[in-house]
Amino acid sequence: MAAQGAAAGGDFDRMWSALLPIGRHAASGGYRRYAWTAADAALREWFAGEASARGLDLTADRAGNQWAWWGDPDRSGFADRGAVDAGRGVAVGSGRGVAVGSGRGVAVGSHLDSVPDGGAFDGPLGVVSAFAAVDALRERGFVPSVPLGVVNFGDEEGARFGVACAGSRIITGALDPDRARGLRDADGVSLADAMAAAGHHPEHLGRDAETLRRVGTFVELHVEQGRRLVELDRPVAVGASIWPHGRWRLDLVGEANHAGTTALADRRDPMLDLAAVVLAARRAAEARDCLATVGKVRVEPNGVNAIAARVTAWLDARGPVAAEVRSVAEAVAAAAGTGAVEESFTDETSFDPALTAQLSTLVVGAPLMGTGAGHDAGILALAGVSAAMLFVRNPTGVSHSPAEHAERSDCLAGVAALTEVLADLCR
Amino acid sequence: MAAQGAAAGGDFDRMWSALLPIGRHAASGGYRRYAWTAADAALREWFAGEASARGLDLTADRAGNQWAWWGDPDRSGFADRGAVDAGRGVAVGSGRGVAVGSGRGVAVGSHLDSVPDGGAFDGPLGVVSAFAAVDALRERGFVPSVPLGVVNFGDEEGARFGVACAGSRIITGALDPDRARGLRDADGVSLADAMAAAGHHPEHLGRDAETLRRVGTFVELHVEQGRRLVELDRPVAVGASIWPHGRWRLDLVGEANHAGTTALADRRDPMLDLAAVVLAARRAAEARDCLATVGKVRVEPNGVNAIAARVTAWLDARGPVAAEVRSVAEAVAAAAGTGAVEESFTDETSFDPALTAQLSTLVVGAPLMGTGAGHDAGILALAGVSAAMLFVRNPTGVSHSPAEHAERSDCLAGVAALTEVLADLCR
Repeated sequence: MAAQGAAAGGDFDRMWSALLPIGRHAASGGYRRYAWTAADAALREWFAGEASARGLDLTADRAGNQWAWWGDPDRSGFADRGAVDAGRGVAVGSGRGVAVGSGRGVAVGSHLDSVPDGGAFDGPLGVVSAFAAVDALRERGFVPSVPLGVVNFGDEEGARFGVACAGSRIITGALDPDRARGLRDADGVSLADAMAAAGHHPEHLGRDAETLRRVGTFVELHVEQGRRLVELDRPVAVGASIWPHGRWRLDLVGEANHAGTTALADRRDPMLDLAAVVLAARRAAEARDCLATVGKVRVEPNGVNAIAARVTAWLDARGPVAAEVRSVAEAVAAAAGTGAVEESFTDETSFDPALTAQLSTLVVGAPLMGTGAGHDAGILALAGVSAAMLFVRNPTGVSHSPAEHAERSDCLAGVAALTEVLADLCR
Repeated sequence: MAAQGAAAGGDFDRMWSALLPIGRHAASGGYRRYAWTAADAALREWFAGEASARGLDLTADRAGNQWAWWGDPDRSGFADRGAVDAGRGVAVGSGRGVAVGSGRGVAVGSHLDSVPDGGAFDGPLGVVSAFAAVDALRERGFVPSVPLGVVNFGDEEGARFGVACAGSRIITGALDPDRARGLRDADGVSLADAMAAAGHHPEHLGRDAETLRRVGTFVELHVEQGRRLVELDRPVAVGASIWPHGRWRLDLVGEANHAGTTALADRRDPMLDLAAVVLAARRAAEARDCLATVGKVRVEPNGVNAIAARVTAWLDARGPVAAEVRSVAEAVAAAAGTGAVEESFTDETSFDPALTAQLSTLVVGAPLMGTGAGHDAGILALAGVSAAMLFVRNPTGVSHSPAEHAERSDCLAGVAALTEVLADLCR
């Protein structure tokens, strides 16, 4: 184990170093790895190179997510062994009539894109750990009995086009392809045009039955985005569920006027409503054991000497209990004296309990944890794939920031845990 | 008087109609007339056409402000009469050694640019009224004994490059030409490049002694930006002073983090500080009989699912007493737990008391009013020009908004008042 750990560490370090410069913003020190940009293309090239170096078969699905397979996921048995496991009912060469999640393939991975000025770990840690786990399995002479795939989901953060987990949502059918193609970035460029400009095929976007039938099981390793593992003094946790999560928009309408001449009593200043919204969100979340955040605001016309005509505020609320999360939004809307427009609401996503239990047994001492963050694993779970997650300790809990960090020893503990999980799932 | 009023109204209406479509934004219904844009060029062309139609001599000063002179402002006497008034000490053909404001010329006018989605009246009313007053003087056969100029000051609102009254500040030396050239708009275009692209000469920017020595007196007519004249039931007021006015920037620093995973107790969310700033500004202004506004905010990274790393808020505060205005900023900074960076502070600007008294006598029944808004007349007054203002009633008090309005009859009352003022000043 010690020798294997060192080898995995060596390869982990090499991969990590190669990723570090890609999409890094010099001034902020954070990453700006957005979908269908030059940085995104460089990350995809890196992924293709790692797949090629290991002799894995690289494919892109209808949303452009990258898959690197060890073994042929379209054969009912495993190519290296030539066996056919017809008993599992996996069809060959066609996705028709095959239920999602019935495939035998085991996939691991995460995403490589980032939020604006994000950290190095959110996403890439899962992809690098997946390749490192493949290496560790090979070093111990392990031959998987089912196809094993490493995946890079595109556009997980939704930083450019506003929809998180766009890659997994498109292939599972959760995001309509016409809506996806029409999404626009801040410069007005559509996702379809951006994808085409990057040399990909927006006309192929849509539910991808062929890809889905290959994947029976998906395990995503991710850096923790909180400090629970610090409190519990453990390097790795098993993900149990993703909390209910909603986003609401509050349209705070005032009256544009001159800041230097309009009497206070004559003003309708929506900035005061914004203050009420921000404070109400914090109070309501505290009272309901939820999280609530106003992180995005648009002020019009946004002039120093102009009373705002309109302020738009977005509320993000999450928590263990769906009704409490909704109640936060209601309390905030009441404080603003306006309605809250629900832009999205996702109920609790439970990972596969049998898989979660299996992971808990394999990763000795790993606690079970729910999380407030959305992940591709949650999207696949909602679509019927047997999915679960592993979390790696984050010493400060900070994520979506250049300060995001995980200790190397904890990252290698994550690789070791993922290796044990794959050895068991692919036995 | 009735016939003259109708004639002035006819010309007023024609000029007003010609301006209405220029720079109007179809969706908002407001004006986007920014410095050195196509809309600005169209406005300048309109001004040149009106000057030409009246046989006025058009010149542009070193900042590109447009002047249309009736009579030669560079002769010590008035061209039409050939008289030389050497006793006033006006030099011919050189600005050297001549005190600002010592010139014999009388200028009237205002500006044609707008704030983002501004109204039709703020600025253009003063320019149109100036031309209409020239027409009314001519209709009554009046010949001015001193040069009479109509002026269009450029970039009064500072909407594009951030410095209000840029045109008048540059020619009076209040704005350093190098600083002016380096100002950048939201797209990163420098004022120098924008000015050059519009066919003007940024290398000429700077204090313009030649222009300043022409202008002994300046009267700016402007739509009121408040409801004092409504309360007083009068169509026109005489401006007495411009209130002390400051702008401060508050840098509210937090810690970027994930909105879905970071415990409330672990957050440093600068949006909460913004709420405190907004509420403190209102409270402090109420307590000190001042105006205070937070109209501009920048949130970074401004993502729905990201706790803000940094919020920048701008405070605009004004009031009759300078010490109280400064005290508002101190109270707001204390509430934010940070310093307030003073970006500008202008003490009270009093208009020429003799001129103000003269205007009050000429415009019967017009009250004297201070204002919280900055104007080119204030910049010229600070530079030593004898300056004053006339305000025209605004039924709602709304300005810097598409809803900004003045009744036609009040506008014509403004033209009539300006005509009487010019007849007296140029007698």
